[in-house]
Parts: sequence; structure tokens; C-alpha cells
Amino acid sequence: MQPAPIQHFLNTQDLSRAGLDALLAEAARYKRHRAGDALKGKSIALLFFNASLRTRASFELGAFQLGGHAVVLQPGKDAWPIEFELGTVMDGEAEEHIAEVARVLSRYVDLIGVRAFPKFVDWSQDREDRVLRGFARHATVPVINMETITHPCQELAHAMALQEHFGGSEPGSDPERVLRGKKYVLTWTYHPKPLNTAVANSALTIATRMGMDVTLLCPTPDYVLDERYMGWAAQNVAENGGSLRVSHDIESAYAGADVVYAKSWGALPYFGNWEAEKPIRDRYRHFIVDEAKMALTNDGVFSHCLPLRRNVKATDAVMDSPRCIAIDEAENRLHVQKAVMARLVAQRA
Amino acid sequence: MQPAPIQHFLNTQDLSRAGLDALLAEAARYKRHRAGDALKGKSIALLFFNASLRTRASFELGAFQLGGHAVVLQPGKDAWPIEFELGTVMDGEAEEHIAEVARVLSRYVDLIGVRAFPKFVDWSQDREDRVLRGFARHATVPVINMETITHPCQELAHAMALQEHFGGSEPGSDPERVLRGKKYVLTWTYHPKPLNTAVANSALTIATRMGMDVTLLCPTPDYVLDERYMGWAAQNVAENGGSLRVSHDIESAYAGADVVYAKSWGALPYFGNWEAEKPIRDRYRHFIVDEAKMALTNDGVFSHCLPLRRNVKATDAVMDSPRCIAIDEAENRLHVQKAVMARLVAQRA
Amino acid sequence: MQPAPIQHFLNTQDLSRAGLDALLAEAARYKRHRAGDALKGKSIALLFFNASLRTRASFELGAFQLGGHAVVLQPGKDAWPIEFELGTVMDGEAEEHIAEVARVLSRYVDLIGVRAFPKFVDWSQDREDRVLRGFARHATVPVINMETITHPCQELAHAMALQEHFGGSEPGSDPERVLRGKKYVLTWTYHPKPLNTAVANSALTIATRMGMDVTLLCPTPDYVLDERYMGWAAQNVAENGGSLRVSHDIESAYAGADVVYAKSWGALPYFGNWEAEKPIRDRYRHFIVDEAKMALTNDGVFSHCLPLRRNVKATDAVMDSPRCIAIDEAENRLHVQKAVMARLVAQRA
Repeated sequence: MQPAPIQHFLNTQDLSRAGLDALLAEAARYKRHRAGDALKGKSIALLFFNASLRTRASFELGAFQLGGHAVVLQPGKDAWPIEFELGTVMDGEAEEHIAEVARVLSRYVDLIGVRAFPKFVDWSQDREDRVLRGFARHATVPVINMETITHPCQELAHAMALQEHFGGSEPGSDPERVLRGKKYVLTWTYHPKPLNTAVANSALTIATRMGMDVTLLCPTPDYVLDERYMGWAAQNVAENGGSLRVSHDIESAYAGADVVYAKSWGALPYFGNWEAEKPIRDRYRHFIVDEAKMALTNDGVFSHCLPLRRNVKATDAVMDSPRCIAIDEAENRLHVQKAVMARLVAQRA
Repeated sequence: MQPAPIQHFLNTQDLSRAGLDALLAEAARYKRHRAGDALKGKSIALLFFNASLRTRASFELGAFQLGGHAVVLQPGKDAWPIEFELGTVMDGEAEEHIAEVARVLSRYVDLIGVRAFPKFVDWSQDREDRVLRGFARHATVPVINMETITHPCQELAHAMALQEHFGGSEPGSDPERVLRGKKYVLTWTYHPKPLNTAVANSALTIATRMGMDVTLLCPTPDYVLDERYMGWAAQNVAENGGSLRVSHDIESAYAGADVVYAKSWGALPYFGNWEAEKPIRDRYRHFIVDEAKMALTNDGVFSHCLPLRRNVKATDAVMDSPRCIAIDEAENRLHVQKAVMARLVAQRA
Repeated sequence: MQPAPIQHFLNTQDLSRAGLDALLAEAARYKRHRAGDALKGKSIALLFFNASLRTRASFELGAFQLGGHAVVLQPGKDAWPIEFELGTVMDGEAEEHIAEVARVLSRYVDLIGVRAFPKFVDWSQDREDRVLRGFARHATVPVINMETITHPCQELAHAMALQEHFGGSEPGSDPERVLRGKKYVLTWTYHPKPLNTAVANSALTIATRMGMDVTLLCPTPDYVLDERYMGWAAQNVAENGGSLRVSHDIESAYAGADVVYAKSWGALPYFGNWEAEKPIRDRYRHFIVDEAKMALTNDGVFSHCLPLRRNVKATDAVMDSPRCIAIDEAENRLHVQKAVMARLVAQRA
């Protein structure tokens, strides 16, 4: 008999709605009672190809709080550079192949977390998510996406923070319904560098999944997200109600919003050609989230995945306002990831 | 009702004498019995803006020995660079603000340790200790100084080693009194680079606090320490007895000393203008602690905070002598820090 | 009374055959039952002067699985650069001396692991193994070689994988005898850079220790290993039976082999003069382990210590073949190191 395929956690879109709701409910339980033994004697390898503060701390502490241990590895810095292509003659920089890395780590640990941002040269390459897919293909234990070209752990933390705000995590409330029909604005903001679209892709995915009326607000059509994620959002709207529209008009987008979620990203048509994108981006510094814009909303809440450049993406007043739930969202990373790790380990027990 | 202000551990000078003695007594207990459960299920984030061996190892192991877990973060290396000014438009290198870093970490962990050396450009800036103060202002959990412009954990370890040597940690002895009136020399030594004054500031602070007769021995008046710490020392002398004098004469300073503590530091009037200081510093290589100088003492003990350049700051013979208690002092870091962490966590329970 | 000398784990050659067999048996038990409490409340400092994936992860997890904790330090990166010579005037880059580092860490932890590759400039210097020897001389706790100019942990993992394959870890089998007389080929392979001889030295040492008929296959006499390790191998042959020969002929070396172990290394006569060695090395790319060569063997198994460059040192087909036991060998690192750590700690209890 063939073993069941390994369950990874690569994207929320791979989960059923029931599975998603169960994870969020479990995360809420972990927030009330931090400790547990779901990972007793278990371990997770956290592979960081890029910097991290919240992800690193929350995964490492989540493992500890559940009785497990996280090993943090930084390939190319304290571990060897890795090859991800199949069939190559490895006479370049990479000292070992993902096949060996994933197989060996699978012998040591029960879970593997991977953070691997795009290389920002060729989107057609980066959109294949080869680092994460390489681990998922070769590992014999579950792989968790710690942000590559999507950021599903952030999605769960974000959804949880919104449910908390709008009442969904109170006993007796129905978290499935509490976000339905809320007006949600995902707004692009300026940033001096062209950034990853991962969180934007993820925000669009989870907001539509929750049945919200979603506006993607961005400077020009060039800033619309990759068709894969626009497609997921459209599919989510079809299945969960709500709506999706793209807008380039700040005032009408903010008008009556219940949620404003901000993120900066580089325009995909200019991917790898960032010098050409820069003058365009520079013209839209006024997309900053400020009090004037927030005043147009329906007493809306503001959030951001962090890290955030103050007074570039959002003003001090917005960040320090009681309507800012970014810190709650960041805290929730700890709890949703405990739920994810516990479920993946339990499924294999 | 306003919550009580958070208790941090930023400087020993913030502690009452009773509080200081209680910490040292608790550290002595931890040295006899290493393990405990004072941090069971608790965690500490250790933020290193600079390199570390002893501090890193002793905090991480201290947390483990008490049932807790330390997460080690290096902002700017494996985590994002951080902005500490309020109100800035963050379009430079920093990707996030201390307000978010401190608030988020406070949701994850029970304690935050911070190591942040001066930038060595402008002492009027560095003396504000903005990194540590930024964490203390924004964090909602206690913050521990792991060396910034003072090094209070080193002070405790140093005082403990002296108490051990002079009999204060034996049952029935009075640790409060055992160091009173001892002749203590803090001697500047040569080092090829201009170093932080933190340990010198701290040595002066704790030695006067313990009521010793303290001599600050340095090449010229330019090497006297910042007025804040000279002031603390003067205040300590007023309250605890003992004395404080500055000397530039090696022989008279060493004569009859019970304790010689060595440290190199850069002259504050030349702060940021180090090329001008270098020829002055180079003239005082003979401040090295050697056997001839130690022979002038009252069979005195020698110590240093480490790291130490052998045969530059002290000779091999001094370092390898049974009168050198630097290794004991380094060991004590582990135990005093367990006492500090345990107390800060207990105060919030 | 003098205390007994500290037992380190620097080379398998320091162990009696009974001691070696006992370690392998204990490792096999740890592979069947991962967890234990042999390191409960204990700790190990892992000092990495070079990159690592398997060593880092397996030691850190091994400590965790036995109830202990590993502190990972990278001197020169997150900790201070270290001086290893005695008597030097330390006015160069090093900020502290091995004497202090080893003594202080010995106060904090129960074990010290050291990875320190050669500097590749002067073999007469590197062959003294000064970093490891420095720790062993100054530490007051056991020191473990995590790969310097030999790699004894890899040897144990390799021997264990071979015993597993040839039946030695089954109940009732005699692991001491199961490898005797097997035909073992250690083959040099091409690599774009001149690599450390550590694993080659170690493979020769353990293969002869196990009484196998060992062929060292390399391009020219310049690639023969250092006389110290050739001498160990000759001594092992004398004591354990088996044989040792050097060959430069691929076909006859592979013919009838039971085991093919591959490794690349730089030619010692060209040590530090690598530009002169490069054109020689470049002529022997055909030493790659491929299916044609493996077809000459006695249905032999293939292994490698990893990291491995696919299609440079061995082909995809060899690596992905069921005869490749490199992943088993890598897994065994975890278990043999638990056995080593547990024994060293028990000896001092």
C-alpha cells in the first residue's frame, strides 16, 4: 500500500474551509492557554534564506511552548549553499542539492519550515516557488511555508486578528460568518525598495476566502498582482460570496472600509528592471496610510504584516492609534503557528 | 488604576542596596544549585547588536537551567535593521521601528535582553543609550541591559567574585561588609582600538557602591569617565563610605591594593576623532598589568571582564596566576543573570 | 591526588576497539529509541569556525533529545575572534585567547564541540590541529571533534551505516566481524575547490580499523594522504587484519568492491599553492562515481559524508539508487553523537 501523501502547509488555498476554521479555532485556544505538549520531544528545522524577526521568534517559541525544539539554519551563511534544479552539473556555488538537504533533515526533524523570498530578477522563475517546492518534493516530513511568494502563516494571524476585532473569537460567536460582507481594502504603499508580493497575494487570498468585499487599491494596473493570486481571489469570491475589485482611486477605495491592510510591492511588469519602475513608484508616496484617509473609513481597523517603515507606509498617528491591530496580528503568528505545527505532527502520528 | 511601571534591569544604580544584596545572595544560591524552575515555560529574547561569547552563552544557558528558553536575535544581520528615533520618515536603511519591535517581542516573550554598544562617532548621542532606552520605553515586559554604555550584569558578577574571594559568600559572613574599605584600583590599559567605557563606568559604580576605597588610574585627565558615572560614584561614596580618587601615577595607585581591575577605553574628549587619540593611547602601553605592578599590591587579586588581549592588557603570568579571578567572575555571569531573570519574572507574576 | 585526565573525543584512534564497539552499540540503541535523559540539565557549547548543516542540526537535536541544551557559537562572526598561540602579544585581530575561552566555557557547559577546518595555506601548520588541541588543552570539560583535520563523528556514522547494511546491527549478529574482509574503496573525486582531507583521513582510519580490505583510489601519488593517517591505517591493518593499498587505476580499484566511499580533497604537496594544483585536478573529472563504475563492484553500496555536488562527485543515478546509503549515514550522525555525548558526560559523573 502506498503511504498517504505528506501533508504540507504551503498555502491556505490548499485547505478546506473547515480545515481553515479548525486551525483558527485551535489558534484561539493556544492564545488562551499558551503551553501544551503537542510537540513533546519533536523538532522543527527552520530554514531562513532571508532575514526574520517575528517568524523566527514565533516559530522557535511556539515549538518550545509545545515541548519541542526548533533548529534555526541559514543556508549560504552558517549552512552550505543549496542547488534546487534537477539534473544540473553542480560546479557552481552550491555545495549540495535540495534532494540531500531535505532527505537528511527529514531524518532529524518532524517538520521543516522554509523562508525563501524571490530573487527579484525574473518573475517567471520566482513564481515557480522552487525553493519551497523543492523541499516539499524531497522532504519526507511536512513542510511549512514561512514566506516565499505567499505568506500563509501571516494570513492566519491576520484573519484571527480580524475575527478577534469583529467578535469572532468570543464564545458563541460564529467566526465563519463574522467577516462576511466586511469592506476590506488592501492598499499598496510606497517603499524605497521594490518588495515581495507575498503578503499582498496572501491578503487577497484570505480576505476573499473570508467572504469580504475586497478592494485591491494600487497606483496603476501595473501593480495588480499575479494572475494566479487574482484567480484564487476570484475563485474564493465565487465560493464564499463577497466581491473583488481593483481600484486606483484612494478616496473611493477607503470610503466606508471596515479594514485597511497596507503593503508595498514592486510592479510585476518591471520585475528585474527595477530602475525603470523606480520613477513610477516614486510618484505614489501619497499612498501612505494617514489619519485623513482613515477618516474616510467606517471607523475601520488598520493592520500591516510588519516590518513597517513609519511615516513612509503609515504615519505614526495611524500606527499608534487604538484602531491599529498590527501588534495583535503579530502576536497571533505565535498561536496560529502552534496550531499548524500541532496539526501537521498529529496527522502523522 | 494605572498599572505599576515595569521593572527593568538597566543599571545597578536603580536598585536599593537591599535589592542589590538580595540579588547577589540569590546568585550565590544558584551557584550552589544550578537548576530551578523560576522560568518554567517562560522565554527571553536576547537582542545582540554586537558580538558576544559569555553574555550569549550565559543568558541562553541560564534560561535553560531555569526551565525557560532564550531566542537569540541579531537585528541587521538575521533580523531587520531598526529605527530608534521618534517621528522620523523612515526612508533610510531601517526597516522597522523600535515601537513595533519592542511591542511585538513583548507579546512573545517574558523578558528582553539588549546588547548595544556605542557607535563611537558622537558621545553626546551614545550617552543617551537610545537603543536600550527605546526598548525600555516601548516594551511591556522587563528589559535587561546586556551591555550598552554600562554593563550591570558584569558588575554583579564582579562583586560576587570579590565577595567570594574576601569571604562574603561563606555562611555566617556578612557580604554587605566584606568589601568595605578594601583598596580597589580600576586601571586603564592599552588596547589597539578605542573601546567602550561601559565596563569602566560599571566598575566604578559597583566598587563605590560596595564602600571600597577606589582609585581610577588612567593616563591623563582625558581618560576620566563621563560625569554621569563619576557622579554616581561620588554619590555612592557619600552613601556607603569608602572613597574615590583619580590618579595618573601607576606606582602609588597600585601600592597596597587589594583588588586590581583592568579595562581599556577610549578618551571621551576624542570621541569620534580617534585618529587624534591614537598617538596618545600608544604612549601608554606600559599600563599593562604585569607581575611587577601586582607585586606592589597587598597580595591583591586581579580581574577583567573578558575578552582580554594577553600581553597587551595583562601578561600571561598575571592571567595564569592563582590571584586572577577573571574566570570566576565570568562564571558568575551565569548565576547573577539567573537571579536577575528570576526576580524580574517573579515581580510580574 | 591528581585528577584523572579529561576524556575528550578527538579521534577514534584514541579509543580501544571495545570502546569503539560500545559506542556503536549505544548509537544503535539510540536509533531505536531516540529519547533519553543522559544529558538532563546538561549543556554543550558548539563552536563553529566553519559552516555546517548536518553537524549543527544533529548535535543540537541530539542534546535536546537527551534532555540537554546546545549553545551554538560562531567565533569571529557572533563571538570574538580567538588567539590560539601561547605567549603572543595579542595586538592583532584576536580579541581573546583560547585559554580564557576554554576555561570560561568549561564553567558554563558540560561538553564543548569544535569545528575548525584548515586554513589551506600551510599544511605543516594545519596538521597540528591547533584549534582543537587548544580547546583540549585548556578546557576542563570534554571536547568533541566536530571536524577539523579528521572527522571522527562521521567515521562512527559511516561505520554504523555499513554495519546496518551488512547485517551488524541485527540482534545476534556480531558487529565486530561483519565488516571484516569486505572490499572497501575510498575514491578521490573532482571538486572545483581544493577541499579538506579530514573525511578522507577518517574514512581510511575507520575502514582499516574495521578490518576491511581498503583501496585508496586517487589520481596520482600527490593525492595520497598525510603520513600520520597512512600510518594509522597501516597500524590498524596490522592489528585488525584486512589490508591497505593505494591505486591510481579506476577499473581495478572498483572491481569487486563491496563499498565505494567518495570524497574530494586537495593534494598536500600543493597545499597553499592551489593555482598550481588546479590544472592537475581538472584532468581528473572522470573520477566521478557513476553507474558504469558501480557496475564493476560486487553489488557494492555507495556513500559520501555530504555535502555532495551532484554530477560532479557522483551522478544523480548513483545518488538516487537504493545502493546509496549516504542518507542513512547522515541520519546516524544524530545517534552516534548522542552516544558520544552521553558517554563523555557519564564518565565524569
